[in-house]
Amino acid sequence: MNSLNLKNFIREIPDFPKEGILFRDISPLMEDPKIWAQIMNNFSQLCMKVQPDIVVGIEARGFIVGSSLAYKEGLGFIPFRKPGKLPGDVIGIDYKLEYGNDRLEANEKSLYKGIRVLLIDDLLATGGTAKAASDLIFLSQANLVGIGFIIELSELNGRKKLPKDVIIESLVKY
Amino acid sequence: MNSLNLKNFIREIPDFPKEGILFRDISPLMEDPKIWAQIMNNFSQLCMKVQPDIVVGIEARGFIVGSSLAYKEGLGFIPFRKPGKLPGDVIGIDYKLEYGNDRLEANEKSLYKGIRVLLIDDLLATGGTAKAASDLIFLSQANLVGIGFIIELSELNGRKKLPKDVIIESLVKY
Repeated sequence: MNSLNLKNFIREIPDFPKEGILFRDISPLMEDPKIWAQIMNNFSQLCMKVQPDIVVGIEARGFIVGSSLAYKEGLGFIPFRKPGKLPGDVIGIDYKLEYGNDRLEANEKSLYKGIRVLLIDDLLATGGTAKAASDLIFLSQANLVGIGFIIELSELNGRKKLPKDVIIESLVKY
Repeated sequence: MNSLNLKNFIREIPDFPKEGILFRDISPLMEDPKIWAQIMNNFSQLCMKVQPDIVVGIEARGFIVGSSLAYKEGLGFIPFRKPGKLPGDVIGIDYKLEYGNDRLEANEKSLYKGIRVLLIDDLLATGGTAKAASDLIFLSQANLVGIGFIIELSELNGRKKLPKDVIIESLVKY
Protein backbone atom coordinates (compact mmCIF):
# COMPACT_ATOMS: atom_id res chain seq x y z
CA MET A 1 0.00 0.00 0.00
CA ASN A 2 1.22 3.47 -0.79
CA SER A 3 2.02 5.55 2.23
CA LEU A 4 -0.73 8.04 3.05
CA ASN A 5 0.21 11.59 3.92
CA LEU A 6 -0.97 11.81 7.51
CA LYS A 7 -1.21 15.60 7.38
CA ASN A 8 -4.14 15.25 4.99
CA PHE A 9 -6.13 13.50 7.71
CA ILE A 10 -5.27 15.63 10.74
CA ARG A 11 -8.14 17.98 11.50
CA GLU A 12 -7.27 21.59 12.39
CA ILE A 13 -9.44 23.30 14.98
CA PRO A 14 -8.77 26.99 15.68
CA ASP A 15 -8.87 28.41 19.22
CA PHE A 16 -8.89 25.08 21.09
CA PRO A 17 -8.34 24.51 23.95
CA LYS A 18 -7.99 28.30 24.14
CA GLU A 19 -7.89 31.34 21.88
CA GLY A 20 -4.93 31.53 19.57
CA ILE A 21 -4.11 27.81 19.65
CA LEU A 22 -4.60 25.79 16.47
CA PHE A 23 -5.43 22.31 17.73
CA ARG A 24 -4.27 19.35 15.62
CA ASP A 25 -6.89 16.63 16.07
CA ILE A 26 -5.86 13.02 15.51
CA SER A 27 -9.40 11.65 15.84
CA PRO A 28 -9.72 11.04 12.08
CA LEU A 29 -6.54 8.93 12.23
CA MET A 30 -7.98 6.70 14.96
CA GLU A 31 -11.27 6.29 13.16
CA ASP A 32 -9.66 4.94 9.98
CA PRO A 33 -8.02 1.55 10.51
CA LYS A 34 -5.89 1.84 7.34
CA ILE A 35 -4.35 5.09 8.55
CA TRP A 36 -3.95 3.74 12.08
CA ALA A 37 -2.21 0.63 10.74
CA GLN A 38 0.26 2.86 8.88
CA ILE A 39 0.97 4.77 12.09
CA MET A 40 1.52 1.55 13.99
CA ASN A 41 3.82 0.26 11.24
CA ASN A 42 5.85 3.45 11.52
CA PHE A 43 6.16 3.02 15.27
CA SER A 44 7.14 -0.63 14.75
CA GLN A 45 10.18 0.61 12.88
CA LEU A 46 11.06 2.70 15.92
CA CYS A 47 10.66 -0.44 18.06
CA MET A 48 13.04 -2.33 15.78
CA LYS A 49 15.61 0.40 16.38
CA VAL A 50 15.27 0.73 20.14
CA GLN A 51 14.15 -2.79 21.18
CA PRO A 52 11.89 -1.81 24.07
CA ASP A 53 10.71 -4.23 26.76
CA ILE A 54 7.59 -2.19 27.50
CA VAL A 55 5.54 0.74 26.19
CA VAL A 56 4.58 3.69 28.41
CA GLY A 57 1.65 5.87 27.30
CA ILE A 58 0.76 9.25 28.78
CA GLU A 59 -2.86 9.98 29.78
CA ALA A 60 -5.11 10.26 27.87
CA ARG A 61 -4.51 10.21 24.11
CA GLY A 62 -1.16 8.51 24.71
CA PHE A 63 -3.16 5.56 26.05
CA ILE A 64 -4.83 5.14 22.67
CA VAL A 65 -1.58 5.32 20.72
CA GLY A 66 0.52 3.33 23.18
CA SER A 67 -1.97 0.55 23.78
CA SER A 68 -2.39 -0.29 20.09
CA LEU A 69 1.36 -0.31 19.65
CA ALA A 70 2.05 -2.45 22.72
CA TYR A 71 -0.53 -4.96 21.50
CA LYS A 72 0.95 -5.01 17.99
CA GLU A 73 4.46 -5.55 19.31
CA GLY A 74 3.52 -8.10 21.97
CA LEU A 75 4.78 -5.79 24.71
CA GLY A 76 3.28 -4.81 28.04
CA PHE A 77 1.70 -1.39 28.50
CA ILE A 78 2.15 1.00 31.43
CA PRO A 79 -0.02 4.12 31.85
CA PHE A 80 1.41 7.36 33.22
CA ARG A 81 -1.53 9.17 34.79
CA LYS A 82 -2.72 12.46 36.26
CA PRO A 83 -2.48 12.62 40.06
CA GLY A 84 -4.86 10.54 42.16
CA LYS A 85 -5.93 8.22 39.37
CA LEU A 86 -3.63 5.27 40.04
CA PRO A 87 -4.33 3.02 43.03
CA GLY A 88 -1.70 1.71 45.40
CA ASP A 89 1.83 3.02 45.82
CA VAL A 90 2.88 5.45 43.12
CA ILE A 91 5.88 7.53 42.19
CA GLY A 92 5.27 10.98 40.77
CA ILE A 93 6.84 14.05 39.24
CA ASP A 94 5.52 17.59 39.61
CA TYR A 95 6.09 19.84 36.64
CA LYS A 96 5.25 23.29 35.36
CA LEU A 97 2.79 24.06 32.62
CA GLU A 98 2.52 27.39 30.81
CA TYR A 99 -0.04 28.36 33.46
CA GLY A 100 0.11 26.47 36.74
CA ASN A 101 1.46 23.08 37.67
CA ASP A 102 0.68 19.47 36.96
CA ARG A 103 1.84 16.07 38.11
CA LEU A 104 2.36 12.72 36.45
CA GLU A 105 2.23 9.44 38.35
CA ALA A 106 3.15 5.81 37.74
CA ASN A 107 2.66 2.61 39.68
CA GLU A 108 5.73 2.32 41.88
CA LYS A 109 6.48 -1.28 40.90
CA SER A 110 5.72 -1.22 37.17
CA LEU A 111 9.06 0.18 36.11
CA TYR A 112 12.36 -1.00 37.53
CA LYS A 113 16.08 -0.88 36.97
CA GLY A 114 17.19 -1.69 33.46
CA ILE A 115 13.83 -2.32 31.80
CA ARG A 116 13.88 -0.76 28.31
CA VAL A 117 11.06 1.76 27.92
CA LEU A 118 9.52 3.25 24.80
CA LEU A 119 7.55 6.38 25.73
CA ILE A 120 4.58 7.19 23.49
CA ASP A 121 2.32 10.22 23.25
CA ASP A 122 0.19 11.75 20.54
CA LEU A 123 1.78 15.20 20.47
CA LEU A 124 5.06 16.94 21.27
CA ALA A 125 4.35 20.62 21.88
CA THR A 126 6.37 22.55 24.49
CA GLY A 127 7.63 19.23 25.83
CA GLY A 128 6.68 19.77 29.47
CA THR A 129 4.69 16.57 29.84
CA ALA A 130 7.14 14.41 27.89
CA LYS A 131 10.00 15.82 29.97
CA ALA A 132 8.12 14.96 33.18
CA ALA A 133 7.48 11.45 31.86
CA SER A 134 11.14 10.96 30.99
CA ASP A 135 12.13 12.24 34.46
CA LEU A 136 9.72 9.74 35.98
CA ILE A 137 11.27 6.91 33.98
CA PHE A 138 14.72 8.08 35.12
CA LEU A 139 13.49 8.23 38.74
CA SER A 140 12.38 4.60 38.51
CA GLN A 141 15.87 3.65 37.24
CA ALA A 142 14.34 2.25 34.08
CA ASN A 143 16.11 2.74 30.76
CA LEU A 144 14.33 5.16 28.43
CA VAL A 145 15.42 4.06 24.96
CA GLY A 146 12.98 5.84 22.66
CA ILE A 147 10.18 8.38 22.46
CA GLY A 148 7.54 8.41 19.74
CA PHE A 149 4.94 11.04 18.88
CA ILE A 150 2.41 11.18 16.08
CA ILE A 151 2.75 14.98 15.80
CA GLU A 152 5.59 17.36 16.65
CA LEU A 153 5.06 21.13 16.70
CA SER A 154 8.67 21.92 15.84
CA GLU A 155 8.50 25.68 16.40
CA LEU A 156 7.78 25.12 20.10
CA ASN A 157 11.19 23.44 20.56
CA GLY A 158 9.86 20.74 22.88
CA ARG A 159 12.53 18.35 21.64
CA LYS A 160 15.22 20.47 23.32
CA LYS A 161 13.77 19.61 26.74
CA LEU A 162 14.10 15.86 26.15
CA PRO A 163 17.13 13.64 26.85
CA LYS A 164 19.84 13.87 24.20
CA ASP A 165 20.80 10.18 24.26
CA VAL A 166 17.35 8.86 23.37
CA ILE A 167 15.95 8.26 19.86
CA ILE A 168 12.98 10.60 19.40
CA GLU A 169 10.72 10.20 16.38
CA SER A 170 7.67 12.13 15.27
CA LEU A 171 5.61 10.92 12.35
CA VAL A 172 4.32 14.36 11.35
CA LYS A 173 6.09 17.68 11.86
CA TYR A 174 4.64 21.17 11.68
CA MET B 1 -2.03 -22.05 25.38
CA ASN B 2 -4.11 -22.88 28.42
CA SER B 3 -6.45 -20.15 29.45
CA LEU B 4 -5.15 -18.14 32.42
CA ASN B 5 -7.51 -17.31 35.25
CA LEU B 6 -7.62 -13.54 35.02
CA LYS B 7 -8.72 -13.20 38.63
CA ASN B 8 -5.29 -14.40 39.71
CA PHE B 9 -3.72 -11.34 38.10
CA ILE B 10 -6.15 -8.62 39.16
CA ARG B 11 -4.69 -6.64 42.04
CA GLU B 12 -7.01 -5.77 44.94
CA ILE B 13 -6.47 -2.42 46.61
CA PRO B 14 -8.57 -1.63 49.71
CA ASP B 15 -10.06 1.83 50.29
CA PHE B 16 -9.43 3.23 46.80
CA PRO B 17 -10.57 5.65 45.49
CA LYS B 18 -12.28 6.06 48.85
CA GLU B 19 -12.76 4.25 52.12
CA GLY B 20 -14.76 1.06 51.93
CA ILE B 21 -14.18 0.48 48.21
CA LEU B 22 -12.08 -2.51 47.16
CA PHE B 23 -10.48 -1.39 43.91
CA ARG B 24 -9.81 -4.06 41.26
CA ASP B 25 -6.68 -2.99 39.43
CA ILE B 26 -6.14 -4.25 35.89
CA SER B 27 -2.61 -2.82 35.62
CA PRO B 28 -0.98 -6.26 35.94
CA LEU B 29 -3.09 -7.47 33.00
CA MET B 30 -1.84 -4.66 30.78
CA GLU B 31 1.75 -5.20 31.79
CA ASP B 32 1.78 -8.86 30.72
CA PRO B 33 1.38 -9.29 26.96
CA LYS B 34 0.35 -12.96 27.28
CA ILE B 35 -2.54 -12.05 29.56
CA TRP B 36 -3.47 -9.05 27.42
CA ALA B 37 -3.50 -11.24 24.31
CA GLN B 38 -5.92 -13.62 26.04
CA ILE B 39 -8.20 -10.70 26.91
CA MET B 40 -8.10 -9.45 23.34
CA ASN B 41 -8.87 -12.95 22.04
CA ASN B 42 -11.87 -13.11 24.34
CA PHE B 43 -13.13 -9.78 23.03
CA SER B 44 -12.52 -10.98 19.45
CA GLN B 45 -15.10 -13.67 20.10
CA LEU B 46 -17.54 -10.95 21.12
CA CYS B 47 -16.70 -9.14 17.86
CA MET B 48 -17.47 -12.28 15.88
CA LYS B 49 -20.89 -12.37 17.51
CA VAL B 50 -21.83 -8.73 17.11
CA GLN B 51 -19.89 -7.72 13.96
CA PRO B 52 -19.12 -4.13 14.92
CA ASP B 53 -18.02 -1.46 12.44
CA ILE B 54 -16.22 0.54 15.11
CA VAL B 55 -15.05 0.36 18.74
CA VAL B 56 -15.91 3.06 21.29
CA GLY B 57 -13.77 3.30 24.42
CA ILE B 58 -14.65 5.32 27.52
CA GLU B 59 -12.01 7.63 29.08
CA ALA B 60 -9.52 6.69 30.41
CA ARG B 61 -8.91 2.96 31.00
CA GLY B 62 -11.45 2.17 28.29
CA PHE B 63 -9.03 3.82 25.86
CA ILE B 64 -6.39 1.23 26.71
CA VAL B 65 -8.74 -1.72 26.32
CA GLY B 66 -10.63 -0.39 23.31
CA SER B 67 -7.62 0.78 21.34
CA SER B 68 -5.84 -2.58 21.50
CA LEU B 69 -9.01 -4.34 20.43
CA ALA B 70 -9.78 -1.94 17.57
CA TYR B 71 -6.24 -2.41 16.28
CA LYS B 72 -6.48 -6.19 16.55
CA GLU B 73 -9.79 -6.28 14.71
CA GLY B 74 -8.84 -3.73 12.04
CA LEU B 75 -11.60 -1.39 13.22
CA GLY B 76 -11.63 2.32 13.86
CA PHE B 77 -11.59 3.65 17.41
CA ILE B 78 -13.72 6.45 18.86
CA PRO B 79 -13.04 7.94 22.32
CA PHE B 80 -15.88 9.03 24.59
CA ARG B 81 -14.40 11.73 26.82
CA LYS B 82 -14.96 13.84 29.90
CA PRO B 83 -16.37 17.31 29.17
CA GLY B 84 -14.16 19.91 27.51
CA LYS B 85 -11.54 17.44 26.27
CA LEU B 86 -12.73 16.94 22.70
CA PRO B 87 -12.20 19.75 20.18
CA GLY B 88 -14.76 20.89 17.66
CA ASP B 89 -18.48 20.15 17.71
CA VAL B 90 -19.47 17.51 20.23
CA ILE B 91 -22.59 15.78 21.47
CA GLY B 92 -22.86 15.04 25.16
CA ILE B 93 -24.88 13.36 27.88
CA ASP B 94 -25.09 14.54 31.48
CA TYR B 95 -25.49 11.79 34.03
CA LYS B 96 -25.60 11.26 37.76
CA LEU B 97 -22.89 9.67 39.83
CA GLU B 98 -23.28 8.44 43.39
CA TYR B 99 -22.17 11.90 44.49
CA GLY B 100 -22.62 14.70 41.98
CA ASN B 101 -22.85 14.74 38.21
CA ASP B 102 -20.68 13.99 35.25
CA ARG B 103 -20.82 14.31 31.50
CA LEU B 104 -19.60 12.23 28.59
CA GLU B 105 -18.88 13.72 25.17
CA ALA B 106 -18.23 12.45 21.65
CA ASN B 107 -17.23 14.10 18.41
CA GLU B 108 -20.51 15.03 16.74
CA LYS B 109 -19.60 13.48 13.40
CA SER B 110 -17.80 10.30 14.49
CA LEU B 111 -20.95 8.25 15.02
CA TYR B 112 -23.86 8.27 12.61
CA LYS B 113 -27.02 6.44 11.71
CA GLY B 114 -26.68 2.70 11.38
CA ILE B 115 -22.97 2.30 12.18
CA ARG B 116 -22.52 -0.80 14.37
CA VAL B 117 -20.82 0.09 17.65
CA LEU B 118 -19.04 -2.10 20.17
CA LEU B 119 -18.70 -0.22 23.47
CA ILE B 120 -15.69 -1.15 25.59
CA ASP B 121 -14.70 -0.26 29.14
CA ASP B 122 -12.55 -1.86 31.79
CA LEU B 123 -15.17 -2.14 34.53
CA LEU B 124 -18.93 -2.41 34.98
CA ALA B 125 -19.79 -1.21 38.49
CA THR B 126 -23.05 0.69 39.10
CA GLY B 127 -23.39 1.16 35.35
CA GLY B 128 -23.83 4.93 35.35
CA THR B 129 -21.05 5.66 32.91
CA ALA B 130 -21.85 2.76 30.58
CA LYS B 131 -25.52 3.81 30.58
CA ALA B 132 -24.51 7.37 29.65
CA ALA B 133 -22.29 6.01 26.87
CA SER B 134 -25.10 3.85 25.50
CA ASP B 135 -27.46 6.85 25.63
CA LEU B 136 -24.89 8.88 23.72
CA ILE B 137 -24.66 6.17 21.06
CA PHE B 138 -28.47 6.13 20.85
CA LEU B 139 -28.53 9.93 20.57
CA SER B 140 -26.16 9.74 17.60
CA GLN B 141 -28.55 7.24 15.95
CA ALA B 142 -25.74 4.69 15.78
CA ASN B 143 -26.48 1.03 16.41
CA LEU B 144 -25.07 -0.25 19.71
CA VAL B 145 -24.59 -3.98 19.10
CA GLY B 146 -22.38 -5.05 21.99
CA ILE B 147 -20.75 -3.98 25.24
CA GLY B 148 -17.60 -5.56 26.64
CA PHE B 149 -16.00 -5.17 30.06
CA ILE B 150 -12.97 -6.86 31.56
CA ILE B 151 -14.54 -6.84 35.05
CA GLU B 152 -18.16 -6.83 36.22
CA LEU B 153 -19.05 -6.21 39.87
CA SER B 154 -22.26 -8.23 39.70
CA GLU B 155 -23.62 -7.26 43.11
CA LEU B 156 -23.90 -3.62 42.01
CA ASN B 157 -26.45 -4.59 39.34
CA GLY B 158 -25.01 -2.23 36.72
CA ARG B 159 -26.15 -4.58 33.96
CA LYS B 160 -29.78 -3.76 34.74
CA LYS B 161 -29.23 -0.15 33.66
CA LEU B 162 -28.00 -1.20 30.21
CA PRO B 163 -30.11 -1.85 27.08
CA LYS B 164 -31.80 -5.24 27.04
CA ASP B 165 -31.33 -5.93 23.33
CA VAL B 166 -27.53 -5.66 23.33
CA ILE B 167 -25.04 -8.47 23.95
CA ILE B 168 -23.11 -7.61 27.12
CA GLU B 169 -20.05 -9.63 28.08
CA SER B 170 -17.71 -9.39 31.04
CA LEU B 171 -14.58 -11.50 31.17
CA VAL B 172 -14.36 -11.60 34.98
CA LYS B 173 -17.28 -11.43 37.40
CA TYR B 174 -17.19 -10.71 41.12
